[in-house]
Parts: sequence; structure tokens; C-alpha cells
Amino acid sequence: MTEKCKDLVIIGAGPAALTAAVYSTRENIDTVLYEKGAVGGLVATIDKIDNYPGFSEGVGGMDLADELEKQAKRFGAEIEYGEVTDVEVDGDLKKITIDGQKICAKSVLVASGCGHKKAGVDGELEFAGRGVHYCATCDGAFYRDKKIVVIGGANSAIQEAMYLTKFASTVTILVRNKMTASEILIGELEKFVKSGKIIVHLKSPVTEIIGENGHVTTVNFNEDGVAASVDADGVFVFIGFNPNVAFLKNSGVEFDDLGFIKTDAKLETKVPGIFACGDVRSGSTRQVASAVGEGATAAISISEYLRVLEK
Amino acid sequence: MTEKCKDLVIIGAGPAALTAAVYSTRENIDTVLYEKGAVGGLVATIDKIDNYPGFSEGVGGMDLADELEKQAKRFGAEIEYGEVTDVEVDGDLKKITIDGQKICAKSVLVASGCGHKKAGVDGELEFAGRGVHYCATCDGAFYRDKKIVVIGGANSAIQEAMYLTKFASTVTILVRNKMTASEILIGELEKFVKSGKIIVHLKSPVTEIIGENGHVTTVNFNEDGVAASVDADGVFVFIGFNPNVAFLKNSGVEFDDLGFIKTDAKLETKVPGIFACGDVRSGSTRQVASAVGEGATAAISISEYLRVLEK
Repeated sequence: MTEKCKDLVIIGAGPAALTAAVYSTRENIDTVLYEKGAVGGLVATIDKIDNYPGFSEGVGGMDLADELEKQAKRFGAEIEYGEVTDVEVDGDLKKITIDGQKICAKSVLVASGCGHKKAGVDGELEFAGRGVHYCATCDGAFYRDKKIVVIGGANSAIQEAMYLTKFASTVTILVRNKMTASEILIGELEKFVKSGKIIVHLKSPVTEIIGENGHVTTVNFNEDGVAASVDADGVFVFIGFNPNVAFLKNSGVEFDDLGFIKTDAKLETKVPGIFACGDVRSGSTRQVASAVGEGATAAISISEYLRVLEK
Repeated sequence: MTEKCKDLVIIGAGPAALTAAVYSTRENIDTVLYEKGAVGGLVATIDKIDNYPGFSEGVGGMDLADELEKQAKRFGAEIEYGEVTDVEVDGDLKKITIDGQKICAKSVLVASGCGHKKAGVDGELEFAGRGVHYCATCDGAFYRDKKIVVIGGANSAIQEAMYLTKFASTVTILVRNKMTASEILIGELEKFVKSGKIIVHLKSPVTEIIGENGHVTTVNFNEDGVAASVDADGVFVFIGFNPNVAFLKNSGVEFDDLGFIKTDAKLETKVPGIFACGDVRSGSTRQVASAVGEGATAAISISEYLRVLEK
């Protein structure tokens, strides 16, 4: 254990984490962020964000990430690259393991986000953010009167497919095996199928996403073992999320049934001094606007926590 | 009752309201906002906001308000000027009275904010946002190594005065009569008084805030009936907030002890179809970042509510 003992260690450097850092460093709380990937998190991978408040014509995901990073650094936040592998409670303090090294913190904010489960097919990474999407609320409006393919067959896929009919001319759902959505949702879906807005293919695993000139054009799949294809302007993959929480197994933090972190209204976990915000939190809306809101709230709660701790 | 029945009526047009409108209109939810004052709410009155995420060098309050307004209008939100005086439940619908006219809505979002209680002294309005402030978290950092006067004697005034010592060279608290803060807080305050960071004047109502060249210089007050004054670069008024909720008396919505609106985690009030977000909500942090986050969350909840209602 080194001598380094920070007021606040933030795990992650997406919008929730960077906003919390703006707030904490402005209050002279000694703050370091640890990021294992890229600063900005998932935001930095989105071509254009139309619904982040304050940018009337939308803002590039990378541009927003850059601004957030500059803003946090301007007030003195340190951003370090490294992978957190363990968080343990040690009396009033926390011990955090990063790339094999232990450091100490008075408080921890988990803002490590979550990853979209990938379909794992050719073309998916190539068109990610520019034809292949993982969030209907974020990107559905780009496909007014266009053809959309949805990959998935559980609740979220069916819900989002119906939602996307607000924009798309047609939505084709490709389900790997059979539908696992609730009966109520499947009942609702029937109406859309009858009206021709939604077409469903069961036992139809996707094999490839194809495009030209940087735009998606076609999705190839096997329907019950037979090669098939469908025209598509956009592909939405809804096969679930993976919260980034593996490093919390020894922390005592509580999770919901899907593995997301449970918090109270002040965004504190069951473990005093460990807070969580953004996409990794149970109940998160997975919106940048909500993430920054939670970052601010968490930092204010942490400031109160540290004030009481240091009394 | 006119024929007009909107999917969503939003009461207010501050950051929470405008963000909710961006989200709702993007989902083709027919949305109208009613504003009795100025679009942007309290934000439009702030000179510069340093901690709104995404603007690394800060953003003018009026500029942010303008961008939010443009963004909401771009997706089709209507903004109307008018004062809401009543909200009543009528079966599945709500009846809203605006300037004496009744309109109908399937859902209502209360984002009417709150007003800072004013000290009501000369100079207060003249220097509002440029020397006279009502939020320490927002504006305290502008007063590093400067002299601050705090007006108020209840919990929030004492808490914020101690907080402001992080920045200010000295903080002078002017209390109208006697201190009404909790004993614990008064105990904590003693330490700051002993170290000379905070000076307290009891029975000292403020009479005037004086400045020159657009900057505050002096605060005049009566100390136990005798005219006195103190040098000041900034004045922070913490004598409470008034949530804007008078129009909800017939709505069935529940309030906390201070009159703010109670909601669940989805930001719905006790009355199905009436939601609340931003500064008017119980538990709000009174930060723009949190307000926009709540606006997004509320709109997502309202979208779900309308989907079920219309089934």
C-alpha cells in the first residue's frame, strides 16, 4: 500500500465521471479518475448526439467528450489510465487495486458504465455509430422514413422495435432463435406486424452487415438454415448490456438482478463512502443528460460524506 | 373547456422543462410548455455557469437558455406565455387553467422551479448575478481570496457560509435577528469563527448593497439599531426558496415539509400522469446538470405512461 490517499477515486471517465470531477475539484476535493479505455466512454463513440441539452444543432460525441475532459482538468482533476481490478473496504478508507498497484481513497465513485452486448458479426464494428446503433432513443430519429433492422428477441428489442416505428418506414426484427419477450409485448407487437410496419424473422441469426460508401445497405442472415438478406439503412442491436462491475466483487456493494449497482436517492451504495452514477447504476436511463445529472448529484453527496468523515 | 387536448403540458420553461421537451417532441409526443416569466428560468439570470457539463470554459446563462430553447423548438415544442393557476384531474385527463382559459392534457410535467427568497434591499436586484448570488456551489468559486458577505441565519446560510470559506479570504454572516441553525451547525461554525475565517453579526438586518463600476464593494446594515458597514466583493443571500406550486392546490399532488413536490424514482407524483422535475422537486440539488438529467428521465417516464394510457 503506497502513501497516496486520495479524497476521491472515480472509476471511469465518461460523462457521469467527468461531471462528478468538475463538481468535486471545484470544491477542492482531491480527485483522480481511472479509465481503462478512452476518456468520454460510450459518448466518444457516437457520431452525433442530438438530445444533449445545450447544443441546439446537436454535438459530436467526440467533441462533447473533449469538452468534458478539458472542463474537469481545468479545475484540477487528474485522469490516469489503468484498469481497476479490486475495491475493498479498510475501516473508513477504501483500497483500490489498479494494474496490480494498491492505492487508498476516502471515497469511491463507480462510474464505469456498461458495454452493449455485441452481435459479433462482420460489419458491426466497421459501421458502429454510423449505421449500427445500440440506443433507439439516441439515434432512432436519424431514420425517419428509412428501413431499420433490429437484432434481438427479448423485451428490450421488441420495445425498441415498436418505438422505432415512429420514425422508420419498416422495421425488420431478426431473432436468433425464438422470441423471449413477455406475452403482453408480443401481443402489442402483433398489431405492428398486421399493419406491415414490423416484419419478424425467427430462427434467423445475422451473419453480416454490409454497406457501401460508409452507409449500411444490407443485412445478411440465415433463416432456419437458409441464406437470406434484407435491405437496411440502419441496424439496431438490442441483445443486452454488461455493466462494468467485475472489480467490485469484494467491495460489499449490492447489485440488482441484471448486475447493475443499487444506490439510494443520494447515489450512495450499501457501503458507506462508495457511490455509483451513470449507466452502471440500477435504474439508469442510459442518457448523457441523465448521466451528467447523476454525476453532479453524486459529487454533492460525496462532498457531504467527506465533510462528516473529516469532522 | 376547449377542444385542445395535448399529449403533454409542461409547466415552466427552464432547463428541466426544455430538456423534457427535447426528449418528448423527438418521440412525436405533442408537447406545449407554459411559461409565466422568461424562457430559461433562473439560468437565464446567471452571468456565467462554470459547472454545466460540456462547456469547458463555462457558458453564459442567457446563451445556455437560448440554446435549450432553440433545441426544444427544433424538434417541434411549442412555447406559450401564460400563467398556470390550476391543475385538476378529470378521469384519465388533466384540466389546466392558464390565464383563465382551460385546456386539456393527457399528462402534465411540473417544472416550474423555485424562486430564491429575496433580501428585499436596495442594490440586490441591480447586482443580481454580478456580485449578488443565491447559490454557493454555482458561484462560490468566483470568489477565491475575496471577501464575501452571507445574508441569513438558518441551516442553509450557515452551511453555505462554511462552504464558502473554501474560497473566500473572509466570510461575514449578517443575521437579521438570532441564529436559527441547528446546534450541531452552530458548534461547527465556532471553529471557523475562532480561526477568523468567519465573522458573525447578530441582530443585523441589511439595509443596502453598494457597488461601483458594476462591482459590489460594501454592504450596509444596522447592528442592534446602529448603522454599520462591511467591505464585500460578493454577497450571498440564503434566506430560503419558494417552490412555484400555488397552482397545484387542487391537483392531489403531495408535498414535502418545505412545500416541494414529492416524486418516485421515475419522477411521477402521487397522481398518475402528473410528473415533476428540476428545482420544484423534493430532493433536487438545484444544479442545471441535475435539472436536465431529471428532464430526460421525466420525459422517458411520460413516454411509457402515454404508451400504457393509449393502449
